[in-house]
Amino acid sequence: MLNFEILATEGHARRGRLALNHGVVQTPIFMPVGTYGTVKGVTPRSLEEMNAQIILGNTFHLWMRPGLDVIQSFGGLHRFERWDRPILTDSGGFQVWSLGEMRKISEEGVKFASPVNGDKLFLTPEVSMQVQTLLDSDIVMQFDECTPYETKGHLTTEAEAKFSMELSLRWAKRCQAEFTRLQNRNALFGIVQGGMFEHLREASLAALVDMDFPGYAVGGVSVGEPKEDMLRIMAHTPHRLPAHKPRYLMGVGTPEDLVEGVGQGVDMFDCVMPTRNARNGHLFTRFGDLKIRNARHKTDHRPLDESCSCYTCKGHTAADGTVTGGFSRAYLHHLERCGEMLAPMLATIHNLHYYLHLMQEIRDALEAGRFAAFAAQFRQDRARGV
Amino acid sequence: MLNFEILATEGHARRGRLALNHGVVQTPIFMPVGTYGTVKGVTPRSLEEMNAQIILGNTFHLWMRPGLDVIQSFGGLHRFERWDRPILTDSGGFQVWSLGEMRKISEEGVKFASPVNGDKLFLTPEVSMQVQTLLDSDIVMQFDECTPYETKGHLTTEAEAKFSMELSLRWAKRCQAEFTRLQNRNALFGIVQGGMFEHLREASLAALVDMDFPGYAVGGVSVGEPKEDMLRIMAHTPHRLPAHKPRYLMGVGTPEDLVEGVGQGVDMFDCVMPTRNARNGHLFTRFGDLKIRNARHKTDHRPLDESCSCYTCKGHTAADGTVTGGFSRAYLHHLERCGEMLAPMLATIHNLHYYLHLMQEIRDALEAGRFAAFAAQFRQDRARGV
Ligand SMILES: [Zn+2]
Ligand SMILES: [Zn+2]
Repeated sequence: MLNFEILATEGHARRGRLALNHGVVQTPIFMPVGTYGTVKGVTPRSLEEMNAQIILGNTFHLWMRPGLDVIQSFGGLHRFERWDRPILTDSGGFQVWSLGEMRKISEEGVKFASPVNGDKLFLTPEVSMQVQTLLDSDIVMQFDECTPYETKGHLTTEAEAKFSMELSLRWAKRCQAEFTRLQNRNALFGIVQGGMFEHLREASLAALVDMDFPGYAVGGVSVGEPKEDMLRIMAHTPHRLPAHKPRYLMGVGTPEDLVEGVGQGVDMFDCVMPTRNARNGHLFTRFGDLKIRNARHKTDHRPLDESCSCYTCKGHTAADGTVTGGFSRAYLHHLERCGEMLAPMLATIHNLHYYLHLMQEIRDALEAGRFAAFAAQFRQDRARGV
Repeated sequence: MLNFEILATEGHARRGRLALNHGVVQTPIFMPVGTYGTVKGVTPRSLEEMNAQIILGNTFHLWMRPGLDVIQSFGGLHRFERWDRPILTDSGGFQVWSLGEMRKISEEGVKFASPVNGDKLFLTPEVSMQVQTLLDSDIVMQFDECTPYETKGHLTTEAEAKFSMELSLRWAKRCQAEFTRLQNRNALFGIVQGGMFEHLREASLAALVDMDFPGYAVGGVSVGEPKEDMLRIMAHTPHRLPAHKPRYLMGVGTPEDLVEGVGQGVDMFDCVMPTRNARNGHLFTRFGDLKIRNARHKTDHRPLDESCSCYTCKGHTAADGTVTGGFSRAYLHHLERCGEMLAPMLATIHNLHYYLHLMQEIRDALEAGRFAAFAAQFRQDRARGV
C-alpha cells in the first residue's frame, strides 16, 4: 500500500503526505539509516521521541546477519528490531557490488561468497524481491546496478553508463514481475540511473515511468563524484519524475544538500552522515558544523546548539518535573577525550535530531509558502559559525 | 550534611534512610560507578528512570581529565555531568596505587607523574580533601592505602598489613582535619583496613570509631583474595561498625554478594560488574547469568528476563500509549554479533536495572520482615538457570 498526496508546492519543492502500511510519513523527510536492524548508537525509543517517521534497513546485511530464518520467525524486520513505523529497505545491490573481487556479475544477477561464512550465494532481482518481501519493508527498492563514478581511477564512460543503466532497466522489469507474483502488500520503487549523463538519466526515467512504479528514486549520486556533478544531476532529474509520486534521492547528504534537494523537488532522503559523523565527534548545528574534539570547547558551558531542543542540548523533562540532560560542550568534549560511550550516544541523538528537525522546519516553511525565504535564512545561519 | 535513620532491622540487616545534600537515599543501596563523570553506556535520564539514587565518581580520574579548573567552573561535579542526585567520590588512593612504578609513597603522601600529560603531582590526604571539596560530592572518602592481597605473587604479611592499616589511620586524622578546615558541607567516611586479619580490622575500626566519622566503609576487600576470605571479612567487620551510621562495603560484588552483604549489615555497595559485564555480553537475571554471545540465543524470542521491567526486557510506554523496546534475546544476540553499539547500551540498561531492582526487592523484604525468606528464594531462583 502506498498513497501519496501533495499538500503544497513552491517552485519544484513539495510538501506531501505518504501513507504506507506501517503509518504515515510527512514529506519532505530524512530517513535515518539502520543497516543491521539498528540505527547505530540510538534506541528505537530515542528515534520515536525525535519523531523519526521512517528508517532504512539493509537487505544484504540482514540477509547475512542474523539471516532470513531468524527474521522470518519474527514475521519481518519490524518485530525483530522493535520498530513499528515504516521501514524502507535497499535492494542489496550496492553492497554486493562493494565486494569487488569476491563477486561475479551476469545478466542473471550477482554470484558472491558470503563475507560472513563463505557460502556461495546468488543475488538476483527475484531473490532481492523475495528477501524484501520476507522483511516486510514498507518500501522495497528494485535491484539495480549503482553505476560507479569511477573504478580504480577510470571514469565511467558514457557507453559503460548506458550499458549499466539498461541492465538496471531489465532488472526493474524482473523486480516488478516478481514483486507482483509474490503478492507483496508494500510498495516497490524504481531507481533512475544513467551516471553523470543527462540524456541517459532521461532515458532511464522514461522507461521506468512506463513501468508505472508507485515511487521513484534517483540512484548513482553521492558515489564519489565532484560536488558540482552531484548538484547538476540533482537539478536535472528529480523534478522530471512524475509529479504525483514520491521522489527519493539516495544517499544524500549534507544539511545544505537536503535544502537544495527539496528545492529541486525531492521528497525523501537518507544518509549515514548524521550517525557516522556523530561517532567521529562531528556535530551539525544551525550555525555550522562543530568538531567537539577541538580543544577550544574544553571549558565552554554552552550547549552544542542553543536553538536545539534535543536531549543532548536542552535535556528532557520527566512527568514529575525532573530535568535531565542538556549538556555543555565542555562535558561532551571531555567524554570524547576519554573515549566514553556516552559521547557517540549523545552526539548521535543531537545529529539525528538536527536532521529531522531541519526537515520539520522545511515542511513548516512549505506549508506557509515561505520555503525560498527559509532556504536563504538557513544558508546564512549555517555560514555564521558556531 | 548526613542524616541516617534505621527504619527496620532483621538480624544484622538494616533498612535505612540516608539524607544527603543532594537528596535522600533509601538503603540498602547499590551505587553505579561513574568513573569519568559518566556511568559507562547510559544517559543520566536512563539512570533516573531506573531509580539510581546515588552514583560514584572517581577523584583521581576527574582530576586528570577534564581537570579541576573545568569542574570548578561548573561549581562541582553535579552540574558538569548533569546529575542532580547524590554523588560519592573515592579518594584517588586506589588509582594512584595502581600506577605501580610510576609513583612513590611516603608518610606525607604519594608522588606520581600524571598518566595524561606527565606532570609531577603529589596526592596527600589534604589534596584529596581539597579535590573532593571542589567536586562537592555528597560523600567524601578518606585518603587511605588499600592494602593489597598480594603483590607480584607475594601475599601481604600481617606486619605489612598492620603498617599499611596504621598509615591509613594517620591519614584518616589528616583527612578529618583538612575536611573541617575546608568547611566542607558534605560527609566524610572513614575506611576500615587491616587486610585479611580480623584483629587488625578490629584495631582499625576502633581507632576510626574514636574519630567519630558520620559513616564508615570497609575497604581492601574484592582486591583479588579468594572468595572465602572475602566472605570471612564480610562476615566479620560490617556488623561491628556503629549501628547508627551507614556502612559501605567497597567494590562488592555479584548479586549473591549483595544479598550476603546486606545480611551482614552492609547498607551501601558499589561495583563495576553490572556495567563492565554488560559491555562483554554478560547479563544478570533473576534465574542466573546469561552470555548473550552464545549461539543458543540466536533464535530465542524471549526477553533476557521475563520478570524484568527494564526498557530492554519490557520496553517503555510513552504518554501517547506507544510502546518501544522490549527486545528478544535473538535481537540482542544479533546486535552483539554485529558489534553494534546498541548491544552494550541495552545490556547496560538491563544489568543496572537488575542490580537496582534487586536492592528494591531487598528493601521491600526488610520492611516486611521477610529478608531471610527473600534471600532463600533469591538463591534458589538464581540457581535455576536461564
Ligand atoms: Zn541538540
Ligand atoms: Zn531487563
